[in-house]
Amino acid sequence: MVTEITLDNIEQLAIGSSFLGTGGEDPYLGSLLCREAIAKYGPVKVLAVDELKDEDNVFIAAALGAPTVMIEKLFSIEDQHRAVETLERFIGRKASAIISAEIGGCNSMMPVAYAAMRGLPIVDGDGMGRAFPALQMTSFNIEGVACAPMTIADEHGNSVLYQTTTGLKAEELSRPVAAAMGASVCMSCYPMTGAEARRAAIPKTLSGAIEIGEAISRSGDPRSPIDRLVAALRAHEYYKDAAVIFRGKITGLERDTSKGWVFGNCTISAMNGAGSAELKFQNENLLVTVDGKLRCVVPDLVTIVDAETAHAIPTERLAYGQRVAVVACSAPPLLTTARALDVVGPQCFGLDEQYAPVATLIGDLL
Amino acid sequence: MVTEITLDNIEQLAIGSSFLGTGGEDPYLGSLLCREAIAKYGPVKVLAVDELKDEDNVFIAAALGAPTVMIEKLFSIEDQHRAVETLERFIGRKASAIISAEIGGCNSMMPVAYAAMRGLPIVDGDGMGRAFPALQMTSFNIEGVACAPMTIADEHGNSVLYQTTTGLKAEELSRPVAAAMGASVCMSCYPMTGAEARRAAIPKTLSGAIEIGEAISRSGDPRSPIDRLVAALRAHEYYKDAAVIFRGKITGLERDTSKGWVFGNCTISAMNGAGSAELKFQNENLLVTVDGKLRCVVPDLVTIVDAETAHAIPTERLAYGQRVAVVACSAPPLLTTARALDVVGPQCFGLDEQYAPVATLIGDLL
Repeated sequence: MVTEITLDNIEQLAIGSSFLGTGGEDPYLGSLLCREAIAKYGPVKVLAVDELKDEDNVFIAAALGAPTVMIEKLFSIEDQHRAVETLERFIGRKASAIISAEIGGCNSMMPVAYAAMRGLPIVDGDGMGRAFPALQMTSFNIEGVACAPMTIADEHGNSVLYQTTTGLKAEELSRPVAAAMGASVCMSCYPMTGAEARRAAIPKTLSGAIEIGEAISRSGDPRSPIDRLVAALRAHEYYKDAAVIFRGKITGLERDTSKGWVFGNCTISAMNGAGSAELKFQNENLLVTVDGKLRCVVPDLVTIVDAETAHAIPTERLAYGQRVAVVACSAPPLLTTARALDVVGPQCFGLDEQYAPVATLIGDLL
Repeated sequence: MVTEITLDNIEQLAIGSSFLGTGGEDPYLGSLLCREAIAKYGPVKVLAVDELKDEDNVFIAAALGAPTVMIEKLFSIEDQHRAVETLERFIGRKASAIISAEIGGCNSMMPVAYAAMRGLPIVDGDGMGRAFPALQMTSFNIEGVACAPMTIADEHGNSVLYQTTTGLKAEELSRPVAAAMGASVCMSCYPMTGAEARRAAIPKTLSGAIEIGEAISRSGDPRSPIDRLVAALRAHEYYKDAAVIFRGKITGLERDTSKGWVFGNCTISAMNGAGSAELKFQNENLLVTVDGKLRCVVPDLVTIVDAETAHAIPTERLAYGQRVAVVACSAPPLLTTARALDVVGPQCFGLDEQYAPVATLIGDLL
């Protein structure tokens, strides 16, 4: 169990979060923001989900937008503060702890930087245990916590607060504003009491991301980075049904940035020409087939990693000719219940495929 | 001076507001809402602008959207209340008086209905002295009152609050949400103290609208309705440079509803074929030329009225073959200062024409 986030484990968090991001925003820029914040304000205390008191006020710090833009447009803690402050003012309570909405990708980073600035602890947990492209796709929502009131803020001093009847409506009404604000904004949503967060958050995902990042980047271990990654996943409570399901090079890539998201497909062909894998993504990877056979589908995780370093390659960094491996693993159990699949299952992304646990789809590799 | 709005003067207010709406939303549906509210809650006390106390809290009740939609999608006082309540909660003050943002068109009506429901007085004044198609185009803005915090609310229980650095930004960020909410929503903005409203509101426009409506609909006066209308305008402090500038029938009409507005042109040809008038509009009429010569341009008012009844014809009700007269008149002086023209002048609508007072453009008719 990690007890604080320091300058020494930020990089591991970034590497692990990038894997859990399944193609979502690259945490690299966010990790620079984190480094600066920790250097200025000091390390951030990590609080286990079950250490939260009933009366705690748990606030989210997050980015909303299209990855295509996020890799170019920088975030600032001040914009994040405006989003949280507007929400605090409206609900009349001050944050006593910060939590990540999404441990995968760059949304693992801003909460740490923001917690440092506020001198508040960060909760070891999140609302996805991975990354998803839409606001309503959280364990908070699955467990009945309201997304709204929710706020977004841009870099010009503007903020917008939503009071909506559903998380889906918050998503619908905030996406066009985020687009008008430049397709990348800071936000806060799902304000929770400690009691609510204990019930609705997915625990231990912050420390889980650090463990994964540590395994990938560990020196002095004779195994390859990809083998260390798979071993770390298999040792984890949630991600344990894990395997490399394909290796090859990228031979096809389609990306379309519209309505504030990036949609697309990636084709990976075996180096010896024997077979290919096909991935679909909406910000994050949604599913992968190998030679036409389904091998993993949301909410289970599928990430494209560099064949040598095992570092995850975000959707935006995919390029023709890259040598890669495709790693699939199981999602936290909270995401695969019948109730959860109504919120984060394949049909929520307009896919025709039915959900099947990755353990059944890649049983031959486990 | 009108001291209260009752079931007896609602219709006159609707008729006069429709004229001052210069083509904007038809107040007819709003007047039904008003009748119902006054029947249920009783008459609404009218407060002169200079009767406001420094510490009064003056709140706006208004509709935002495209007229094309507004004539079909009804408003409710409950939605309006959600918009005001969200704003009250955020700024921590309760309304003590209601004011219209826009005396022209349907935004003259909801404030009265809402004031009735809240048991609050309505201020005899507004922020436009006419109608304009965008949020930042108000005397409040011209006089330095901030548009935000501002709220909008839909009919499904959703509300959105904006804290923006400028009124133009509030406009930019709320228009796409209004479109996503169905192109017609309730709102509240420019929350003011009594001291601010005394400085920034255009006084006496509510009673002015009633006077104009009363003149148009007066029975037992031998003059034609159009003559009575022009006489009432000429007797008014603001609208006194007034004349019928063209009579004919509508022979051309183009309307394009996009981005939440309706843009278009209307051509009116003389019955004897001698000459034609050309109007441009964006929700409201922006300018009119007669045989190519500019006769009136925003912020001065130009309204198309029925040739017989002198009732204003909103943009949405214009139709090929209608017999009409075009009436132009001067705007309240607060709208024609150099500072005001930066906010409501022709260039704010993308027009090439420079502002010239209507008195100089139709001097031959005065």
